[in-house]
Amino acid sequence: MRILLVGAGGVGDAIAKIAARRSFYDTIVVSDYDLGRAERTVEWLEARGQARDRFIAAQVDASDPDSVASLALEHAITHVMNAVEPKFVPTVFAGALAAGADYIDMAMSLSEPHPTDPYTETGVKLGDDQFAQAPDWETAGRLALVGMGVEPGLSDVFARYAADHLFESIDELGVRDGANLVVRDDLGNEIFAPSFSIWTTIEECLNPPVIWERDRGWYTTEPFSDPEVFDFPDGIGPVECVNVEHEEVLLMPRWIDADKATFKYGLGNEFIGILKTLHQLGLDKTDPLTVRSANGPVEVAPRDVVAAGLPDPASIGPRMTGKTCAGLYVTGTAPDGSPRAVYLYHVADNEWTMAEYESQCVVWQTALNPVIALELLASGTWTGRGVLGPEAFDAQPFLDLMAKPLADGGYGQQWGLDERG
Amino acid sequence: MRILLVGAGGVGDAIAKIAARRSFYDTIVVSDYDLGRAERTVEWLEARGQARDRFIAAQVDASDPDSVASLALEHAITHVMNAVEPKFVPTVFAGALAAGADYIDMAMSLSEPHPTDPYTETGVKLGDDQFAQAPDWETAGRLALVGMGVEPGLSDVFARYAADHLFESIDELGVRDGANLVVRDDLGNEIFAPSFSIWTTIEECLNPPVIWERDRGWYTTEPFSDPEVFDFPDGIGPVECVNVEHEEVLLMPRWIDADKATFKYGLGNEFIGILKTLHQLGLDKTDPLTVRSANGPVEVAPRDVVAAGLPDPASIGPRMTGKTCAGLYVTGTAPDGSPRAVYLYHVADNEWTMAEYESQCVVWQTALNPVIALELLASGTWTGRGVLGPEAFDAQPFLDLMAKPLADGGYGQQWGLDERG
Repeated sequence: MRILLVGAGGVGDAIAKIAARRSFYDTIVVSDYDLGRAERTVEWLEARGQARDRFIAAQVDASDPDSVASLALEHAITHVMNAVEPKFVPTVFAGALAAGADYIDMAMSLSEPHPTDPYTETGVKLGDDQFAQAPDWETAGRLALVGMGVEPGLSDVFARYAADHLFESIDELGVRDGANLVVRDDLGNEIFAPSFSIWTTIEECLNPPVIWERDRGWYTTEPFSDPEVFDFPDGIGPVECVNVEHEEVLLMPRWIDADKATFKYGLGNEFIGILKTLHQLGLDKTDPLTVRSANGPVEVAPRDVVAAGLPDPASIGPRMTGKTCAGLYVTGTAPDGSPRAVYLYHVADNEWTMAEYESQCVVWQTALNPVIALELLASGTWTGRGVLGPEAFDAQPFLDLMAKPLADGGYGQQWGLDERG
Repeated sequence: MRILLVGAGGVGDAIAKIAARRSFYDTIVVSDYDLGRAERTVEWLEARGQARDRFIAAQVDASDPDSVASLALEHAITHVMNAVEPKFVPTVFAGALAAGADYIDMAMSLSEPHPTDPYTETGVKLGDDQFAQAPDWETAGRLALVGMGVEPGLSDVFARYAADHLFESIDELGVRDGANLVVRDDLGNEIFAPSFSIWTTIEECLNPPVIWERDRGWYTTEPFSDPEVFDFPDGIGPVECVNVEHEEVLLMPRWIDADKATFKYGLGNEFIGILKTLHQLGLDKTDPLTVRSANGPVEVAPRDVVAAGLPDPASIGPRMTGKTCAGLYVTGTAPDGSPRAVYLYHVADNEWTMAEYESQCVVWQTALNPVIALELLASGTWTGRGVLGPEAFDAQPFLDLMAKPLADGGYGQQWGLDERG
């Protein structure tokens, strides 16, 4: 296996660091628009003796399929691992196919709201552009494994596991994500510093949330709908969660039999209030405004100004404490006919991810899962062709490899199963 | 009297329109950095036959004392009426003195927070720079009447009236400002559109609020301190008010005997939440940030971006409904020795100010009071020298002229007195 990693930002960097401790591949080309960023990742591994001549830094333009394809061909790449912003999904996806490589990403092609009824009907859905190209991938005999981060990704693996091993029939597949992360300034005061790109967070939180029901199919609601306090494990505790547009709702119903699929994000009241205010003042907008400046009027997008004023999420790890939990709450009927409710989850503790990987926990947790998936593909445990989600594959070997101790060749990452009434 | 009006924005324009119906002066030179804006005001009056050869449009640079002084000398100005942003107070103030003219403003020179204890101690206070120059004005035999809008302004007139006519001793002079204004878009949906410059509103609301007490002198608190629901008259009803930095607290204790002076602004919970969020995200900042744009990185101040994204307050009048109330809540002991609480107030209804003056009510209410003051100075009813606040003058003739019917030569603007237990 020869991997082209496209993007050496927070998640790409963590993918390289996690993969560096494994031996299932021959080469990883770490590429970025900013070559220096790719080089820093490789140098970090070399300085710790983990690169072992398997890592190469390269420059790439993720917005250009030809740039991706030519870099892949140059290095005889078998798998393109996409770790850039979702807006570049179409070009990296096309570049991989053009190079005859398999493809993995952690977010799917973007949605567009319904032109007249954005808060009841779907328009272009997340991943629609990719699924429309499934015949091309099938014909080429290549695999595009889409949505293979933590959410989407591990959450979809949990869905498949629940359907195969825990339930006779499923009422709802409900992804529930929550954290108790706190970031402090040098004086120890708590500051507002989102642990994930505010640009992407605004995008997913202010888009109309999508829900799937067996009788209705996919439909949308107003942002922040159906607030629910969900009790997260491992000391995180209760967090207010609301509907947010997310890939799992588009993926799970394609492969798993259930009455309903939802995604609720534990944004908390404070963050929901902030996002609502940004929207109310038009500060979420991506169209440029004309603004006065010392150098005369300039054109800037308000959302870019919001992002520029906040700390870089990749930089806040050392000032952050707490844990993040990704998981799936499944309700339905157990094989014995009794009602069952189960929360399947994985928790990442920032203190541990920083100490082990110098990577903050939200970014590290996202990066873990595609590395496990690549290892299952390398060993032939997972095989497939066409455009497939994580739930199209057997969940058991994934969860086994994830939980198996390091000493036994696993990843040593426990996942949890809470029986809840 | 020959008046130089500096600034033809919303308030300056309304001053010209209100003054145009009076005859106490010979000439008003309407000036602005943007000559076209000054010309529009004069043309509006001419089109209605109200100019009567008394109005002249001119260009001025309010940031340059020489520009103000030379324009004043050119037109043999006796009174400079400052109607620009408070940051230009020092230069307009200096220009007026240099030209040997009297001076009126509606906001005082800006404050600077205490360098180490901004939320307990005052630093440079509102108006400090102006009061420091009082000897120059006294020596020159000229008057600077500072803080003569509605708040500060009419509120200070009410303070003097209460001290002279309603109370034996005063516990608290509490300015309380509230409104029930609503702005709608073309579809009739309520939108967020502040009725006053968001730039100035952020400035006054996020600066540490100042309070005066007899035993402590001036001190400051955290922003939005001491929330209090105040019941406003004329159908406005209860509004949540919080401490805000304002000139009255600096002016009243210099001339009126009281135990305490406060200013609380009826921002309402929603607006307070918005301002807190802007502050939390650093979007209130006036230092430029480097932000990506289609034309490469640009330097913009986040507060300018917030302002650029909102409707111009001067333009929202036609889409606004409701009333605004400015007033002073006074508690203490009545001349007969009994406890007394009185709210003295003036209400402006947007529907009426738009119909009568094509001026939105918040701006119009601010403009009304300096015109009345100029008329009292023109008639010699008010006289003074040095740097004086409105409470240094007899309140009775002001309130009489304000309330007297139009037919009898007054302004026909009723003010109210609520006895409150």
